[in-house]
Amino acid sequence: MTANAQYRLAARPVGLPKPTDWQYTEEPVGEPGDGQFLVENQYVSLDPAMRGWMNAGKSYLPPVGIGEVMRAAAVGTVVSSKHPDFAEGDIVHGVFGVQKYAISDGKGVSKVDTSLAPAPMHLGTLGNTGFTAYFGLLDVGKPEAGQTVVVSAAAGAVGSIAGQIAKIKGCRTIGIAGGPEKCKLLVEEFGFDAAIDYKAGDIRGQLKEHAPNGVDVYFDNVGGEILEAVLARLTRGARVVISGAVSQYNSETPPSGPANYMQLLVARASMTGFLVFDYAARYPEATADLAKWLQEGRITSRETIVDGGIAAFPETLNGLFAGKNTGKLILAV
Amino acid sequence: MTANAQYRLAARPVGLPKPTDWQYTEEPVGEPGDGQFLVENQYVSLDPAMRGWMNAGKSYLPPVGIGEVMRAAAVGTVVSSKHPDFAEGDIVHGVFGVQKYAISDGKGVSKVDTSLAPAPMHLGTLGNTGFTAYFGLLDVGKPEAGQTVVVSAAAGAVGSIAGQIAKIKGCRTIGIAGGPEKCKLLVEEFGFDAAIDYKAGDIRGQLKEHAPNGVDVYFDNVGGEILEAVLARLTRGARVVISGAVSQYNSETPPSGPANYMQLLVARASMTGFLVFDYAARYPEATADLAKWLQEGRITSRETIVDGGIAAFPETLNGLFAGKNTGKLILAV
Repeated sequence: MTANAQYRLAARPVGLPKPTDWQYTEEPVGEPGDGQFLVENQYVSLDPAMRGWMNAGKSYLPPVGIGEVMRAAAVGTVVSSKHPDFAEGDIVHGVFGVQKYAISDGKGVSKVDTSLAPAPMHLGTLGNTGFTAYFGLLDVGKPEAGQTVVVSAAAGAVGSIAGQIAKIKGCRTIGIAGGPEKCKLLVEEFGFDAAIDYKAGDIRGQLKEHAPNGVDVYFDNVGGEILEAVLARLTRGARVVISGAVSQYNSETPPSGPANYMQLLVARASMTGFLVFDYAARYPEATADLAKWLQEGRITSRETIVDGGIAAFPETLNGLFAGKNTGKLILAV
Repeated sequence: MTANAQYRLAARPVGLPKPTDWQYTEEPVGEPGDGQFLVENQYVSLDPAMRGWMNAGKSYLPPVGIGEVMRAAAVGTVVSSKHPDFAEGDIVHGVFGVQKYAISDGKGVSKVDTSLAPAPMHLGTLGNTGFTAYFGLLDVGKPEAGQTVVVSAAAGAVGSIAGQIAKIKGCRTIGIAGGPEKCKLLVEEFGFDAAIDYKAGDIRGQLKEHAPNGVDVYFDNVGGEILEAVLARLTRGARVVISGAVSQYNSETPPSGPANYMQLLVARASMTGFLVFDYAARYPEATADLAKWLQEGRITSRETIVDGGIAAFPETLNGLFAGKNTGKLILAV
């Protein structure tokens, strides 16, 4: 009998998840029942949002329960099926969890077209990551050609794509990331017009230098002091897109809100949150655009694939919060 | 020669303005030159925004300079004129300052139609106060019939009108104010469906009771913990209108931002600032609607008129921050 390997949530973390917040389990793989199939995960998606799912309390999704397999999107291969729409050998995308095998009823599962791009990219640029950048920037941020777009966590999975889409739309793009290496990558690989190294300090001064006429669209993945700094430089009618707040997710003190949010009034600006799931009906539109831009070489997709199997999950996830990856962070099973 | 009486800004206040932050001056009234007129102020408008104008630093208007007459909107009578468009006896509205007499070149000055409403109301419901409520609620908040609209500082000048407009548009309206007397007024005089007394504590609990299905539009005049509480109860796609943040204006510690602003993401909601001046071209539209609603008795306009002359300005302004007024606070000259 095949053995499954899983990471389950053992305790609700305070701050950065500790090894004791996880439970590694091995158990026999079950048999799919009627209308179900068994998938063998090949790639598990690691996302900042996972940290939020580990907290108690109401949010846009229910928290992962203590003892439950950690929630995660994954791409895998169907290895046996009693489901009419999925056959052995199909490569599929779904919320299969941090485990080697999953049984699924097909809800929320889609087949992956590996002729468009290799499988891991369907967790990144051609998956929810890319869709988050696409709809957040275009639908919420509404950038116009010639405007200045600032993106935080710009070397990350969502940020690197958001910046490149803004560039395609004719905007001046400024990426914010930590350290000279990432900043070099922003300009040389992802085509940002300028990069700001937040670890070098004086974020406001750097912003003033690179966005002398202000910021029309800010795509925020981080919150905290970077959000504060950008709010102080908004143009009239600017749009702040709230995509994430990774600087706050592992904070052991209460999160901090933007103390200068009244800049929204001074600038007649808006700050809007969104969730990619709401755009599910329009994923094909995003896929078509993103695949075309990839093919034309107008978008560079980066994946950091960690080849450690399920066992490497806790450490790899913490690496995400330490900013060790560039582009999409994926665990190869 | 007629003597003018004025309040000038003597120092930039820390916290609540102190007597020493003001300088009372008397000086001869000048003669209007060509293209100018002399106005005798009858009513001076007292607004929370005045506190912001006293601070140094860039904002939507330049700060009042040290030694300058304090900026204020006022209604007065033209007493002599060398301006082709304004004649002796005209009743006019303009930014005439905290003083008995002002010389004006007519820029930003409008004639007041006292057949529509008595002069003080043109500083309140039929002036920038009413326009702020009108455009902030309708253009930014976009309430739909049947939705729940929450208004803070709801017994104040802007809040009381915003709530009544929301009611006219078929919304369920909840007003937040301090103390049982104001809360009684909200329901009995301004027609709110429910009132929340923030001084009674447990704002979140009271909100849950009166807005069990959440808040679709929040018209915020106060910021601080009330904003925090409402953010936690937004419906999906809710609109937060940032009209003011009076709880923060006199804070001696750095202002606090909404720590739970990520609720905007959970609720796919927006928070938008606005300034009434941007709607100047549409003031006639607002005036027509507001005057009609006043005539039909669908809007109650309250003014607290303090009959103390220019000398009473500093104390009366601090009364505004202490929440002593209901409706529009006006100083009778």
